[in-house]
Amino acid sequence: MPLPIDHAGMEVLSFDSCLSLLAAVPVGRVGFVANGEVVVLPVNFVIDGQAVVFRTASGSKLFGAEDKNVVAFEADNYDDITESGWSVLVNGRAEVVEDDAEIGRLSRLGLQPWPNALDRPFWIRISPTSVTGRRTPGS
Amino acid sequence: MPLPIDHAGMEVLSFDSCLSLLAAVPVGRVGFVANGEVVVLPVNFVIDGQAVVFRTASGSKLFGAEDKNVVAFEADNYDDITESGWSVLVNGRAEVVEDDAEIGRLSRLGLQPWPNALDRPFWIRISPTSVTGRRTPGS
Repeated sequence: MPLPIDHAGMEVLSFDSCLSLLAAVPVGRVGFVANGEVVVLPVNFVIDGQAVVFRTASGSKLFGAEDKNVVAFEADNYDDITESGWSVLVNGRAEVVEDDAEIGRLSRLGLQPWPNALDRPFWIRISPTSVTGRRTPGS
Repeated sequence: MPLPIDHAGMEVLSFDSCLSLLAAVPVGRVGFVANGEVVVLPVNFVIDGQAVVFRTASGSKLFGAEDKNVVAFEADNYDDITESGWSVLVNGRAEVVEDDAEIGRLSRLGLQPWPNALDRPFWIRISPTSVTGRRTPGS
């Protein structure tokens, strides 16, 4: 059955397809509002169930996520050769993971930290309220 | 002279370096707030002077940009082999370009539209109020 098409001619992906695509890429971007400005920053992440988890340093602007800020998370991929691509947008609330056992479990999920950068001791979980995705037709 | 380092151990890029890196990639992501949610969506774009320009379809959520919404634009690149990467964040206001001569000029900048998708007749310009960038040390 063909996928539904949005107003821009892109195929609308199912929830399961969105999660599968997210799980296949190492880098996404977290988007949030800080001091009245939209901030979009890349992060290495992993999918844990339906949640997006990643690490951050103290002092990061995102540390406002302690307040369960409304955030977005986006990942995409585009192939120049096949001229096909997709993007997935997660909306939800971000929170710092504070439980030691939970941090231990997350630490074993295989997250690859950025090289050469300072320690990022804090784990952030984005629990989705919506997950939407699009891809170029016929991908 | 070594570049300054931010709180996360990343090198802080100059304004000129940020614009050069933006000009070298075809896809970035526009971030904005719509109906109280942060939206982050990939777009094909070009740099015009210091502005980011791209096309969109009528009906796009971004069409709120008509109101000169505060938006963000992000681009990044990461090389798995060298384990080096960068990201640039533009903050500014988005507006629809309505002048026919200006649209004609923008149309000759070499923007590659998404394949197989519907027409995107509207040009959006993001005029930056700030441009910031980071890269992994030693890139």
